[in-house]
Order: sequence, then structure tokens, then C-alpha cells
Amino acid sequence: MKNISFDKVNINSGFWADKQKLVREVSMMNVCKRFEETGRFEGAKLNWKEGQPNKPHVFYDSDIAKWIESAAYILAKHDAPELREYASNVIDTIAASQDEDGYYNQYFQTCENDRRFTNRDAHELYCLGHLIEAAVAWYNAVGEDKLLNVVEEYVDYVIKCFITDKTAKFASPGHEEIELALVKLYDLTKEEKYLDLALHFTNIRGTENDTDRVFYNQSHLPVRKQRTAEGHSVRAVYLYSAMVDLALRTDDEELKEACIDLYKNITRKRMYITGAIGSSASGEMFSYDYNLPNIHAYAESCANLGLALFCRRLNLLDESSDYADTIERIIYNGFLSSISLDGKSFFYENPLEIDPALLQRRGEHYPITQRLEVFGCSCCPPNITRFISTIGDFIYNVGDNRVYINQFISNSAEFDFMGEKANISIESGFPYDGKVKVVWNGPEAELMIRLPFWCDKYTADENGYIKKTVRNGDILCFDFEMKTVLYEADPRVQENAGRFALTRGPLIFCLEGVDNGSYLRDVSVKADGNMIMGYDKDLDLPIMIVDGYRRKHSIREKLYQPVSDEYVNLKLKFIPYFAFANRGETEMLIWTQLKRG
Amino acid sequence: MKNISFDKVNINSGFWADKQKLVREVSMMNVCKRFEETGRFEGAKLNWKEGQPNKPHVFYDSDIAKWIESAAYILAKHDAPELREYASNVIDTIAASQDEDGYYNQYFQTCENDRRFTNRDAHELYCLGHLIEAAVAWYNAVGEDKLLNVVEEYVDYVIKCFITDKTAKFASPGHEEIELALVKLYDLTKEEKYLDLALHFTNIRGTENDTDRVFYNQSHLPVRKQRTAEGHSVRAVYLYSAMVDLALRTDDEELKEACIDLYKNITRKRMYITGAIGSSASGEMFSYDYNLPNIHAYAESCANLGLALFCRRLNLLDESSDYADTIERIIYNGFLSSISLDGKSFFYENPLEIDPALLQRRGEHYPITQRLEVFGCSCCPPNITRFISTIGDFIYNVGDNRVYINQFISNSAEFDFMGEKANISIESGFPYDGKVKVVWNGPEAELMIRLPFWCDKYTADENGYIKKTVRNGDILCFDFEMKTVLYEADPRVQENAGRFALTRGPLIFCLEGVDNGSYLRDVSVKADGNMIMGYDKDLDLPIMIVDGYRRKHSIREKLYQPVSDEYVNLKLKFIPYFAFANRGETEMLIWTQLKRG
Repeated sequence: MKNISFDKVNINSGFWADKQKLVREVSMMNVCKRFEETGRFEGAKLNWKEGQPNKPHVFYDSDIAKWIESAAYILAKHDAPELREYASNVIDTIAASQDEDGYYNQYFQTCENDRRFTNRDAHELYCLGHLIEAAVAWYNAVGEDKLLNVVEEYVDYVIKCFITDKTAKFASPGHEEIELALVKLYDLTKEEKYLDLALHFTNIRGTENDTDRVFYNQSHLPVRKQRTAEGHSVRAVYLYSAMVDLALRTDDEELKEACIDLYKNITRKRMYITGAIGSSASGEMFSYDYNLPNIHAYAESCANLGLALFCRRLNLLDESSDYADTIERIIYNGFLSSISLDGKSFFYENPLEIDPALLQRRGEHYPITQRLEVFGCSCCPPNITRFISTIGDFIYNVGDNRVYINQFISNSAEFDFMGEKANISIESGFPYDGKVKVVWNGPEAELMIRLPFWCDKYTADENGYIKKTVRNGDILCFDFEMKTVLYEADPRVQENAGRFALTRGPLIFCLEGVDNGSYLRDVSVKADGNMIMGYDKDLDLPIMIVDGYRRKHSIREKLYQPVSDEYVNLKLKFIPYFAFANRGETEMLIWTQLKRG
Repeated sequence: MKNISFDKVNINSGFWADKQKLVREVSMMNVCKRFEETGRFEGAKLNWKEGQPNKPHVFYDSDIAKWIESAAYILAKHDAPELREYASNVIDTIAASQDEDGYYNQYFQTCENDRRFTNRDAHELYCLGHLIEAAVAWYNAVGEDKLLNVVEEYVDYVIKCFITDKTAKFASPGHEEIELALVKLYDLTKEEKYLDLALHFTNIRGTENDTDRVFYNQSHLPVRKQRTAEGHSVRAVYLYSAMVDLALRTDDEELKEACIDLYKNITRKRMYITGAIGSSASGEMFSYDYNLPNIHAYAESCANLGLALFCRRLNLLDESSDYADTIERIIYNGFLSSISLDGKSFFYENPLEIDPALLQRRGEHYPITQRLEVFGCSCCPPNITRFISTIGDFIYNVGDNRVYINQFISNSAEFDFMGEKANISIESGFPYDGKVKVVWNGPEAELMIRLPFWCDKYTADENGYIKKTVRNGDILCFDFEMKTVLYEADPRVQENAGRFALTRGPLIFCLEGVDNGSYLRDVSVKADGNMIMGYDKDLDLPIMIVDGYRRKHSIREKLYQPVSDEYVNLKLKFIPYFAFANRGETEMLIWTQLKRG
């Protein structure tokens, strides 16, 4: 099974074309300006001095690397001279700053040059990983190898420090990322040393040769023994992604099994209905099974999109449609919530409930209620821009005589298939309308069309897919009927007991105070009431108008009284979860009560 | 209106007689031993040296004072030679340790003698307040004035430091307590200087002459301007109690109004259904209106009983039965939960929900799940012993030709009434049975019998009381029928939306995991199902057996699924809330779902 890369896919209209345009025309230069203001690019010149503002930070190089990588993905499909020039200049700066021995890190070279590779949690290998991804992307998109040369020299230096001379003071990276990046470098160059280094860092993790063996860094066990998703959630899914990459390239059954078990643990016990993961703010970590607090959710944007990266890889070793179902859940909900509708600002945390009044409580952590343009630790914004720019990666897989359609994103793609040129196009109204039209031009093939988990109109033929044999010129039409359905959580999710999430097709909906008043937890959806799709002019989005109730509080004198049956009818306005917090600070709630009879 | 003091009241049988016996025979010496082990009594000898264990703490004198005070209340009614001898020795120690100038504080005299009255939050005046209460109680019970002389000399020294010489570095106590204690000293001695000092500390609070003007210490506003309960909840209710004491003795209408408004703010917007207060762990503080988290409840034992002290005083300036209703709510629920059924251990925090699994979450505060015999800051245990030993204070008030019956505690009392001797007795099955028999021997009187807020069988005649004219030898019988009723919270209490508390008469009930399995939030009470009173042998307590439901989780494969109507019938076992956490660490829940139809 092979993935069809985003660069073979043209997304020229529809929901994701709009998002990509927004990233290209707004987000990219907005993130760039904020990075400029905070000295992230300037820091790469290594001329910061004590007493000056904007002291370089250990992870700044990863921020600028992801920005370059995003620019590369955009340049692969579009003419964007401003991005190209800016990125080229940054690459020149990095190349000029690289030490003779191959090392490059704006923080360490400027502030602690004698402390290279002494602190496992200082993000050096993490930054190099992102530089490698940027270099590969830039080379593929633009054809220039300047950054590629930088990272290849740097990797040689890493091999020297970690393998040959063993001068490094730790054995595996504190923040995983370089492992999956090295696989990309290996795929591009076919140099075994990169695959070997990725295997080295992955295999030593959690063994007696590893530095400190803690859950936080996924170092509590050798990776093949890991069966529950533990520790820092971004680190975890980056590691698991690399584990799939390596399992695929080395045919390592034990590693494959570990990956699938980790996926099951996450998606059956530790994932929000939005596809978000990492529910614990302390340590940005996974929590224990079924512990999924809504208002205290951490659910970092990078972790959520990282789970999609893990899922996409898993689908190459296991044909089940479940992975693409999870990706769909993420991309339309827990990932998409991380960027504002105007493309300018971002969430680091993606809570499933907001009550601004709670911010008055001292000594407790609550997520911020409004997106910001930049953060001190600003990993999310450029991760979001690169993810949206490569959304085309998630649509197709190809194996033998089969083409798998995983996401119903409008596009047309050209690729080699069974020795011939093939062209496939999809027109779809996702995520608002389930009608899908597929046009096939190419040799006879089996199209495997994912039957979305929320659709009961069709029956799957194999592994959750509908199988159709197509010949050149065939057109297939599906109507994945999007019904409005209330979902419940497993009873072990204490947080959601007696509460239900309103969904329609791939979208999770939420209530906001600005539409529905305060004290949203007291609102109920009327069972068997009307649920009508509407349109909101301000948001410029489809919404749901739903019959509901709430209790009146204006008339109450007592704090506690015998249970009453006095409810007020009202029309509830549910908006797509991804669109929350675009109209100022207000309450937000996904998990709503249901009132029967 | 005058209160009939506990020493006029004989509680010889029934629920509270048992609790008093437990305190007398178990809790008192158990608390004493723990205080011994932690050096609290030894510290009073002022011979601690650097490097030794058990360094004195600024609040240790308040702990031993409350223990002496508790002993005094017991000695007022019972022969308890062990307690008498122990307390006498401690009093001798304190008297011997008092400085020539009158000052006494085991911490400052031992560790920082040159820093007296320099730190507003160092509890010196708080400790003196408790010593005054102990001295008054000891004098009244035993007739010895040694401790009384100590505190009178000390108060003279305080007057010198705070009024005459103004050498103290702050104007009002950081932790209120001395104000209400000074009123007790004034009532005993009739010395105006004590009332004046209480007024001074109360009136300067929150004015421009006060040291720091923060919510935490109720110093944000002059006391007469305070209308919402703010800051540290124990400090708050101690202050408010003193405010009522002073309002009563000075006929200060503005102060009375402030007290009543503060009471309304607490009981209508900031009190748990158990009568507990102070919902914020950070700062042990009140939170904002309607912010009453169950699992994060702080609800300190001292605050809860302190609210009862405030209410008892309020009822002397306002005849409404509401104050006694609140007292009843507290004493059978949020107060009584603070002591184990065996009398040995205590809660500092009294949460309304426990999920032991949550203790795995790092960086978040959750109350401990099991009572302890002593705490580092162990204010609660001796506060609980003194409160139970004076529960007789809460039964009667007398005014003109009236006797008010506020609590249905079995007892007989003798007191002077309209110039004659009167005797009244109550037999009651409270809190389990609502039958009450009142026998009156004395001149013709109006008996005002509180109609409990939860009882709809009678109609109140005046201010929530049933009025009955009685003559010598009259017997009145009432049956305050205790129905099982589900209570709901104001819709603005987000925490409890869609959830209900099972109550019966004055008791709030809860579920425990040990009886009902895990994941209690998913349990529902069946509307119109059976609710039968039972008896639990292990607990030796009445319980409620209630028809209910829960969803099966053993059969689920998916974390989220469309709403199902598959429930399992089960018999829920509700126990009185005060009895929770007596059978090991387990889940606990008050606010339960209700399933209609």
C-alpha cells in the first residue's frame, strides 16, 4: 500500500481549497510577522547578545523550520514569490550559521555552545528533525538542496556524537521528531545511514541504555513493549508515527503490533469525540483510560494533528477504514478548531467546554478562551499551516489494482497506476453535504471507497470500504446521508455521563453563550424535536437549529428546591465545533443534556 | 431574644447523645495523643531548640486552646477526670510560659520573640482569641480563673500594642477570631474595654487605616459595606459571627443589615446543599456566585461549623426560621461528614464527590479521600470536638413570653423563664424519624416550633415557626413527615445541571462505589421508582434502597456511539452523606441523574 502524496493532488475548489487559500494568503505571512517580532528568524543569525530582547529559545529553530516547510508545500502547488523569497533568505541564514562541524542550533550556538547534547530535554534533535522535514520538503518543491546539505552534514555530526564517539550525554531524544524526519530523508536519498539512525534512536528508547526512563518521554519501556499511550502527547504520536514508518520499511511485525495496540488504546480509551488527545494540562500528557475532562482538556493542536499523521501511516500497514474515520474526526473537529475562521490566530489547547467565569478561580489551570497569533512556545501555528497545506496527503492510498478513497475532499489527482497514467477526481460537499461524485480515468481498477462510520445508508464490502470495479471514464455517485445524531460516550467517561454530543456527518457541533445565553450546562435538547440545518450570516457557516429546553433561573429564590418540571422551550443554535470562539469570549459546550418526553 | 446555653441542656439519649459520648470517650484523647506526638503541648513549655523535631508553629496554641475549650464543655456536663487533669496541666504550662508583659505565643516566644505583632498573617491574635474562648469556657465549667487571668493580662498587652502605644505593625488580625472571643470575655466580665477592643478590630478592618486591603482577609471594604462573602471562608464566618455579636450589643442597624445580606449571599449563592461553604481550595476561599464544584470542593470543616455559629447568632437578631434550617442542613451533613463514625479521624475538606482515579492526574488539587487523625494544620479536629460538645446551644432561644425550638434534638432543659423555673423536654427520632414530642413545665408560654423547610405537612404561623400556646404540663406531638425527595440546584450552578440530590428530612444521601460499583456519574435514579428505607449492618445506619439504572460498559467496543436506550436495572444503595468514606477509599457521589420513563 502506497500513499498518493499531496503534490499529485489538486484541490482547487470546495471546503479545503478555501482553507488552503486562507493559509496561503493570510496565515503564512501573519505567522511570519509574529515570528519576526519575537526574534525567531533573527536568532538564526547567531548575533543575539546578553541584555538584548528576544533571547533565542531552544525550540525556535523548529518554529522557523515548520514555517519553511509550510512554504515549501505551498510552493509545490502555487506560485508564492513572497513566501519563496522569505524562506530562501532564512535558509541562507541557517546555512551561513551552521558550524564547521555540521552543528546548527540558534540557541546553543548563541548561548551555550559548550553544552551541546548535554540536556535531553533541550530539543536539539527535535529542532533538527523539523529542519530535515523542511529540507526534504524544500528540495521536493523547489529543487534547491542548500538546506538539504545543511541537514545532511548535521546528521553526520549527530551520528558522530551519538554513535561513533558517543560524546552526547543522552541516548535518545527527549522530544521525538527526528525519527520520522530521518525516514523522510532516507526515502529521498536512499542512504541507509538515515534509516539506521532512526532505528537506533527508536530502538534504544526505554531500554537500559536510555538516559532516564520516564513515561513523560515514552521512555518507560522499549517501544515494542509499549501498549498504552503515555506521557507528553505530541512526543508520543510523533514517536508512534516513526514506529509505523520503520515497521513498514523493515517489516517488523512486533513493531506493527505495538503501533496498532497504541492506536486502539488512544481511540478507544483516551481520545475526545473531536479526535483531540492529551487530556492532561500538567505535562501536556495523556491521562488514564476514560479520563477526558472537557473544561480542563489540554488537547494540544500539535497532538491532534499528530494523531492524524500516525493514522495515515497506520493505514499503510492495515487496510481498515477505522484510521481514515479517525482522521476525518480530527480534521473537521479537534484539528480545525485550532485556527480562527479569519486564519490569523490559533489555539494551543482545544477545550471541549468553556466557562469564562471559571477564570476567576485561582490556582487552577483553564485553557485560554480566545485564539492568539503567537505563543511563547509557538509550535502549533506553523504545524497547522503545514498540515492544511498537505491535506491532500490524506485522500488516497494505492495498492495492487486498488485505489482507496479515504477522505471526501474535492480534488483531482494524477498518478501512475499499474504502469499507466491515471486520473481521479472527487466532487463533494463535505463536511456539510454527503453527496460524492467520483470520476475515474485510467485502467480497470478496484475503487475502495471508505464508508464513513456515521453513515448507515450503505454496507461496507471489505474492511469498512465499499468496493467498486471501475473502468476508464466511469462515474460513481454516493450520497453519504448526513443525519443529525446524538452521540453518547462510553459510560466509563465519567465526565460525559448523561450528556450527548450533537453530530451531523463528520461534524461535531457545540453551543455558544453568544447564541444561547449563559449556563449552557442546563440546556437540554428535546428528544424527537426538530433539528433543522440553517445558516449563520456572521459565521458564514451552516448551523443547526434544534428544539430544546432550559430551566428559568430568574424566578428562583432558593439555591436548592425539590425537583421541578418547569422548563422553558427554546430554539438552540448549534454551530460546528471548529468555529467556536470566533465571536469573542463566551461559554461553549459540546456535551449537552437530552430531555425525553 | 436570648439563647439558652448548652449547659442548661441535658442531652442524655438519642442521636446527639451518642455523638457527644463518642467525642467524650474516643475523639478527645485521640486528638490529645496526636497533638502530643506532634509537640503541640510540649511547645507551650517554650523549650524547643533549633535542630529538634516538632518545631512550634504559629497556630499551635489555637489547637491546644480549642482542645482545652472542648474539655471544658465536656466537664460542664460530665465527670471526666482524665480530660480535667490533662487540661489543667496544659493551663498551668501556659500560665508559667506567659511573659511578664502579658504576651504568650509558643511559636514567637520560642522562635521569633523580637517579631511579635509584625506579621498580620502569623495568627497571634487568632491564637489569643481561641485562648480567650478556652479561658471563658474553663472558668464557666470548672470555676478556675488561672487561664482567665492569663488572657486578661494578654489582652491588656494587646491594647497597649494596638491602641495605646501603636507598636504593632498591622491594624487588624489577619485571621479573625479574637473579635468574637472578646465579646465572650466582655459578656463574662462586663469590662467595656473588651467590647471596645472587639469593636476596634472590627471597625478598622477594610478602612484606610487597615494594613493591606485584600479580599482574602475580608479587608477589601469596611465591614458595614461588605455584602458578599469573600476570601478565606473560616476567617469570613468568624468575622461575621463577631459582627452579629457586636450588632446585638450596640444595636447597630447598619451592621445588622450587612450581616443579613452576607448570610443571604452565602446561603442563596455560595453554599453547598450539605451546608458546606468555601468552594475554592486555592486560599481556602469562597468562590464567585453559583461556583460550587463537587469534586474540587474545599468546604473546610471549620468553615461549615463556623457558618452554624454565624447562623445561631443571626437568629438572635432576626426571628426567621431560615437560620435554624441552615443550621440543621449543616449539622447533619456538611459538618457531620467531618468526623469518622468511630470518632477517631477527621476531614479538613468535605467534597461532595470523590473519584479516587483522579488522584492520578498531576498538577491538580483533589481533596484526600480518607479522614486523618491529625493534620499539619490541625484546626478542624478540636473545632469539631468543641462544636459537638456544645450542640445544645442550637436548640432553644427565648424571647419575652416565647420559647423557640430550633433543633429537634432529644434533650431536657431547665432555665429561668418569665421569673419562674421552666423545664422543657424534647424526644425526637431526628435525623431519621420526624416524630417529635415536646413536654412543657412552666408558666403559660408561646412555643415557637420551627417547621423544617423540607416538611409540607404543617403550615407555619409566623416566620417559619408553628406557634402553640402551652401551659404547665402540656404535651405537644408533631410528625414532621420525612419523605424521600430529589432536590435540584439553581440552574446557575453549572456543576449540578441535570443532576439531583436524594434527601430525606434533614439528611442528604450519597452513593458510594463500595455499594454501587464504579463510574457513579452514570447511575440514574428511576423517576417514580421505589425508594425504601433500609438498614446497613456494617455502617449501623439507616440507608435508602432506590430503583435505578446504569448503562453497561462491559459490552462496548467504541468510545462514542449513537445514543442508546439500553440500561440495566439495579437497586441503588444511598447512605447518609455524613457516613461516606468510612469503608475505605471508594467513589462517592451526591448529585445523581434522574431517569424519567
